[in-house]
Amino acid sequence: MNMMFLQEIFNNITQRDALLRRRNPGSLTPDHGHLVNACQALLASDGEASSIALASRALAIYQRLSSAEKTSFFKRLASEFAADAAQIDEAYAAYAEARDNDTLQTLIDACEPRRQELFRRLNLARDGTYELVKMREDLLELLREQPELGPIDNDFVHLFSSWFNRGFLMLKRIDWNTPASVLEKIIRYEAVHEIKDWNDLRRRLDARDRRCFAFFHPAIGDEPLIFVEVALHKGLPSRIQPILVGEESGDDPEDDDTAAFFGISNCQTGLRGISFGNFLIKQVVQELSQELPQLKYFVTLSPVPGFAQWLTEQREDEQWPENLRNTLGELETPDWHHDAVREERLKAIIRPLAARYLVEAKNAKGLPLNPVARFHLGNGAELHRINWLGDISSKGVKQAAGLMVNYLYVLDDIERNHENYTAKGTVACSNEVRDLARRARKLAKGETAK
Amino acid sequence: MNMMFLQEIFNNITQRDALLRRRNPGSLTPDHGHLVNACQALLASDGEASSIALASRALAIYQRLSSAEKTSFFKRLASEFAADAAQIDEAYAAYAEARDNDTLQTLIDACEPRRQELFRRLNLARDGTYELVKMREDLLELLREQPELGPIDNDFVHLFSSWFNRGFLMLKRIDWNTPASVLEKIIRYEAVHEIKDWNDLRRRLDARDRRCFAFFHPAIGDEPLIFVEVALHKGLPSRIQPILVGEESGDDPEDDDTAAFFGISNCQTGLRGISFGNFLIKQVVQELSQELPQLKYFVTLSPVPGFAQWLTEQREDEQWPENLRNTLGELETPDWHHDAVREERLKAIIRPLAARYLVEAKNAKGLPLNPVARFHLGNGAELHRINWLGDISSKGVKQAAGLMVNYLYVLDDIERNHENYTAKGTVACSNEVRDLARRARKLAKGETAK
Amino acid sequence: MNMMFLQEIFNNITQRDALLRRRNPGSLTPDHGHLVNACQALLASDGEASSIALASRALAIYQRLSSAEKTSFFKRLASEFAADAAQIDEAYAAYAEARDNDTLQTLIDACEPRRQELFRRLNLARDGTYELVKMREDLLELLREQPELGPIDNDFVHLFSSWFNRGFLMLKRIDWNTPASVLEKIIRYEAVHEIKDWNDLRRRLDARDRRCFAFFHPAIGDEPLIFVEVALHKGLPSRIQPILVGEESGDDPEDDDTAAFFGISNCQTGLRGISFGNFLIKQVVQELSQELPQLKYFVTLSPVPGFAQWLTEQREDEQWPENLRNTLGELETPDWHHDAVREERLKAIIRPLAARYLVEAKNAKGLPLNPVARFHLGNGAELHRINWLGDISSKGVKQAAGLMVNYLYVLDDIERNHENYTAKGTVACSNEVRDLARRARKLAKGETAK
Amino acid sequence: MNMMFLQEIFNNITQRDALLRRRNPGSLTPDHGHLVNACQALLASDGEASSIALASRALAIYQRLSSAEKTSFFKRLASEFAADAAQIDEAYAAYAEARDNDTLQTLIDACEPRRQELFRRLNLARDGTYELVKMREDLLELLREQPELGPIDNDFVHLFSSWFNRGFLMLKRIDWNTPASVLEKIIRYEAVHEIKDWNDLRRRLDARDRRCFAFFHPAIGDEPLIFVEVALHKGLPSRIQPILVGEESGDDPEDDDTAAFFGISNCQTGLRGISFGNFLIKQVVQELSQELPQLKYFVTLSPVPGFAQWLTEQREDEQWPENLRNTLGELETPDWHHDAVREERLKAIIRPLAARYLVEAKNAKGLPLNPVARFHLGNGAELHRINWLGDISSKGVKQAAGLMVNYLYVLDDIERNHENYTAKGTVACSNEVRDLARRARKLAKGETAK
Repeated sequence: MNMMFLQEIFNNITQRDALLRRRNPGSLTPDHGHLVNACQALLASDGEASSIALASRALAIYQRLSSAEKTSFFKRLASEFAADAAQIDEAYAAYAEARDNDTLQTLIDACEPRRQELFRRLNLARDGTYELVKMREDLLELLREQPELGPIDNDFVHLFSSWFNRGFLMLKRIDWNTPASVLEKIIRYEAVHEIKDWNDLRRRLDARDRRCFAFFHPAIGDEPLIFVEVALHKGLPSRIQPILVGEESGDDPEDDDTAAFFGISNCQTGLRGISFGNFLIKQVVQELSQELPQLKYFVTLSPVPGFAQWLTEQREDEQWPENLRNTLGELETPDWHHDAVREERLKAIIRPLAARYLVEAKNAKGLPLNPVARFHLGNGAELHRINWLGDISSKGVKQAAGLMVNYLYVLDDIERNHENYTAKGTVACSNEVRDLARRARKLAKGETAK
Repeated sequence: MNMMFLQEIFNNITQRDALLRRRNPGSLTPDHGHLVNACQALLASDGEASSIALASRALAIYQRLSSAEKTSFFKRLASEFAADAAQIDEAYAAYAEARDNDTLQTLIDACEPRRQELFRRLNLARDGTYELVKMREDLLELLREQPELGPIDNDFVHLFSSWFNRGFLMLKRIDWNTPASVLEKIIRYEAVHEIKDWNDLRRRLDARDRRCFAFFHPAIGDEPLIFVEVALHKGLPSRIQPILVGEESGDDPEDDDTAAFFGISNCQTGLRGISFGNFLIKQVVQELSQELPQLKYFVTLSPVPGFAQWLTEQREDEQWPENLRNTLGELETPDWHHDAVREERLKAIIRPLAARYLVEAKNAKGLPLNPVARFHLGNGAELHRINWLGDISSKGVKQAAGLMVNYLYVLDDIERNHENYTAKGTVACSNEVRDLARRARKLAKGETAK
Repeated sequence: MNMMFLQEIFNNITQRDALLRRRNPGSLTPDHGHLVNACQALLASDGEASSIALASRALAIYQRLSSAEKTSFFKRLASEFAADAAQIDEAYAAYAEARDNDTLQTLIDACEPRRQELFRRLNLARDGTYELVKMREDLLELLREQPELGPIDNDFVHLFSSWFNRGFLMLKRIDWNTPASVLEKIIRYEAVHEIKDWNDLRRRLDARDRRCFAFFHPAIGDEPLIFVEVALHKGLPSRIQPILVGEESGDDPEDDDTAAFFGISNCQTGLRGISFGNFLIKQVVQELSQELPQLKYFVTLSPVPGFAQWLTEQREDEQWPENLRNTLGELETPDWHHDAVREERLKAIIRPLAARYLVEAKNAKGLPLNPVARFHLGNGAELHRINWLGDISSKGVKQAAGLMVNYLYVLDDIERNHENYTAKGTVACSNEVRDLARRARKLAKGETAK
Repeated sequence: MNMMFLQEIFNNITQRDALLRRRNPGSLTPDHGHLVNACQALLASDGEASSIALASRALAIYQRLSSAEKTSFFKRLASEFAADAAQIDEAYAAYAEARDNDTLQTLIDACEPRRQELFRRLNLARDGTYELVKMREDLLELLREQPELGPIDNDFVHLFSSWFNRGFLMLKRIDWNTPASVLEKIIRYEAVHEIKDWNDLRRRLDARDRRCFAFFHPAIGDEPLIFVEVALHKGLPSRIQPILVGEESGDDPEDDDTAAFFGISNCQTGLRGISFGNFLIKQVVQELSQELPQLKYFVTLSPVPGFAQWLTEQREDEQWPENLRNTLGELETPDWHHDAVREERLKAIIRPLAARYLVEAKNAKGLPLNPVARFHLGNGAELHRINWLGDISSKGVKQAAGLMVNYLYVLDDIERNHENYTAKGTVACSNEVRDLARRARKLAKGETAK
């Protein structure tokens, strides 16, 4: 018995598979039919050890499926592993008559799609949680064109919300003493400002005035879920490039009064919508406050994705004054920000317009168009400052005319901001930003902004 | 801002509480009404930071409730936080007409008791998971006399099954290098063979041929969920006393071919029915197989609670031969096992009767009456040996006429045993035990057992 | 080769031992002769693996020696493993002629006792460092009556000073999360105020306002070298009993402005004279300052061993005023401190006399008679306050008439105090203590102390 | 007192430095004179806190010294911090008369250079041990041209042998989960087969059949002292290139019966001669035997530095047969190993000559010329196999005509091999190597090698 025990049970099943395959070639080819059979066997199983083995087998087949086969599999999940209408009808009839707890429980059980129990059992396999996250990643890709698969996603969201419960997340500091196996994932997952290689990573992490924190989940090992990069700074930083090249804020650590969050990256596409970002920011604020009592300001240095596109749309709006639209046209001149005169001219109109975009441009739900603004305002932050030439990388110039924004987290205001935002869509902003937005309204009317 | 951040938000709310209390004494007295209000506020909240604070407040009130107030609170949970019948009716009507996914989802949502969302939100509080486990402990106590609270327990079971998912449990070895804060809990929770004090604990843990393993959960810190004590042994052990006093099995560790599980203790009453015992045993078998490749047998040394009571009942069965019933009467003689002649006489009949009890005495569901047998047979073990005078402590003599049982876990048979047991109620047992049971049948007929 | 490698080599040697023993019984009897042979073999060996095995063998023999055999062994160490006089003479002659580095090095080598190389090689064995510490413990015991073994101790001190270099010591916090294997040693080694059992230990460690720190050494595993117990306190504590029973200083942690060191225990007798106490105190001050910035005072609450004996000696000094001597006699009345009048009478003279004892009573080297005073004054602390009825345990009353002393560590004064103490024997003390000492001088002259 | 304590004392001294510098510019310029003064102050100091500060100051000055100033400093160390001849003479005279332990101890003390106490005190500074290792690194560089500094090195060796005692070294596995801060040092220190970048490192470490282990020292933090790279292999490997590119040995881990040590790198030049390599190999053999019981062979795949040079020297030996010398000349043809005919011709003579070089070519002490052979034979290994085209990198071809060698560690032979080697210089080798060496003797005589 000198072997791993559960492994052995699994091997037994696997060997039976191999035997079967030799006798009846093709019986285990990775097509969706076999996977559906494996899933049904798993739902029928009632032995725990065999459940684990069957779950492992099903996930192993899934991993080898082609993209087309995955689509077929999800379609069958949607149709054949749903709740049973007849059962629901019957359960409801019984409930409608009895109106008691037992019949209600039966109705609840009847309504629950069989997929949920299937996913719970797949989760018994080693690394099952992670494999299910990857499975949802595949599903999200398909959903764009096959919205009828939506109910499957509801099941994932229902289960993941429970499994990725805040209480189960573990905050860890990421630094140059972190295992390389984790650091290479930080390089891979950084979504805001690309990390080119290990030297670049080191500049981000390994300095007196840099911090990085990530959430991990016990069942997903050393795969980070989300991480945030922080620069300690004297005063609120306005430009990202000095931070990315690792320039320190000053000689004296005691002078740093600001923690600037300059990158928040979600790592697992398959966890989209299962939000931890707000918890992460708040827990990191707490960690940093304890480590560095001298910190006074907690602020982001955030990109403004979509702003350039919005500007382009405005330029096509013939109600806008023509001179304004012409000036905006100068953004198409390459390297416009190297020409001091042109730069000043653009600055005078773009900062106000950005304020207008962030404060007043709303989506169908009445919330800000800009997704980064939605995230931080929803967390209770204040839209504090619009930084001209904050990001002069080609990406920054292209997506946001080089702007970056500081969102400020002020302890005493967070709850009120959050409540006003969710209740009334109110955008908390500084006087400076409010002035800019007012100026933008004048500009749009052809008046000279103060 | 030299303070903990979320703590501060919480303090703000708490200070408002304090203020309120001064102005309006009694407003926060720990009665169930206030708790119900706090729960409703929590369900109404949509700010995350305030949700955390409200959840903490609700749990804080709960902890100060008297027993009677808790009962009142649970009653209101049952009635006021259930699903809404009118909503269910309406949702079902819509579903019955449309028969599509959206209406089904609405029906599902309508059926879910509001308690579930309440518990999920309470779980946001620091230590919320543990507090909810303790809350269910209170509920289970009440359930005996108030079965109408059952639906609340269903909600707990539904959520705990998800939160205490096997993939989230962490197996840790417990030994003399384990922190004292954990060891004191082992002392407290040992349920099978009491641990008297730290010296007693040390005898159990701190020897070459002892092992102990426990499951922990990341959100519950250093509170063990369940633990198992193991003795390495040459051959299958038949008596518990030498193990408890720390007697070693022999000089040469290489001779130990058996791992004997002599105590499995659930630590959290509030997790009753959320089973991890089978996973624990199997994972420990795996750990030990890797550490000690020479191990050949994995076996328990288990108590037989209820056997003595069953014997008493049989003695009152007038169909039984009178001499048999008389002999059984000798169990009432104090220290009967110190009298060699009497002991032999009892041994001749009690071992067969025990085999019969374990193999043939069934409960209403057709499963073995004995709960320990149900557990191990359900896991796929074999009822292997009945050990005379296996536990001569007063508890052992009183509850099981001194018997202990070995259940044997044989890799190649586990799945088959398990399946036969769940499908047909078949009790896997050794030839020896089968013979004993056969002999018992003869005894019961008044024949001389061979 | 499925075995531990070095272990195997060791086993080979051990098996040869066993073989030898069977053929020639008594050949390995644990007498000092065999040990001396083993030591000589070790010094002659030049294979590293065999050195390790030979060192293990020698230490194994040593452990089984009787006390008398150990004495014989040390005598032979002193005589046969010393430096060789003829070699020294020869080396000196060569050096005296050449006066160069090579001859000097040869002289150095000639002067070094062979014991040093022997001890270095014994240190190759697994746990060798710890075994050598225990060996010195034995030696120190013998030294009292056999001062001629002194040179062996010099060798130990020389090597241990190097091995127990400050840079190699690791400070660890001891609390209720510390492994039981370490905590049981804390119970055993506590030398100042006895810890009765695990419950008593818990009261000392497991409270908001208690701390404990120990030094460990990497080659000695989880054996602490020295530890210190600390109570956080509002103001300087004057009485030990409330601290020992675990009474907290107050409700609000923010009020604690003092860290009181109330017990420093050396754990390894065999490391006597290899001092780490001063480093420990200073490093703990540093740790606590970082953890608790509100701390303002670092102070001890120290016993005054020897004071009662000194008082007794003074009472026999006929130059002292008779009434003073009579009053002192009341200390012999049992429970004198329960009688308020008597207590006041004694307090009026004993506190001044204690100040005199601590400040003015000197040993042959001109340093304070009291060893605890020597330790803290040597570290640069100030003799700050003499606490009446500071320790009313029977031990405290017996050895120090119930007094305890606060030594205060003031950052800005430490260096100056230390220098004055070592250069001139100056005792740094507070005005209060100085006044008390002055009053004592008056008392001794029969004047009324003001 | 909200600051680090010892840090503060140090700051006090440093501030006095700063003050001094302002008043009297140049007073602390990093010249050797100031360092010598600082060292003398340190030796004169008797306060521990001030010793730490003075040691830190001295090391800080040393770090800023120019190369020339370091030379001057070492010269003064050699002359002014040596033992005092007059004191030695006096102490010897006393000893010669008294012949007792006290006078001997005085003589020992007199002989010890003051540098040793100086180094011990410098070691009190934070990171002192590491700084002293770097200081010796500087010294070793100078020693080549300034042999009169040799006595300083003796002092370092004396102290380091004690501080880097085997018992204090900690073996750690290095893998892809190791902190990046350690891994970057592995990249930097690899001395045998260069690691180009992080991807290259990952190929070396992060595969099922690769292992890496390093020794660390508690006072030197995460700086490795020495590390060894291991490949698991089916059979003895003969070529390094497949190992370096990360090619696996086969599908089935169970087939791997050999652990091949293919790189041992010392990391700290300043620890030259303080040998841990043999302990490392033996401890790694032990670790691997426990982890992988199926391993049968522990072998190196080692370079043969110096062999090509030796061949060149032989070619100039006119006593050698001319055709042999001509064939050897073909090694100068670029890419000779790509020409099959030429390669075969060379193989026929070079493997025998390599055997001769390794077995018979000796240095002045009668030990093998080849340093790698000296190391492994001295450890008790056997010269097992000479691998043709074992290393076809340009370095391998250039230094060793592409040869690599397997040294085999056979448990039962290690001690005997070691003893024969140290006592008689005997080279343990396989029959194959012995045959090759014999063939080389024939070749040298112009006979045709069989």
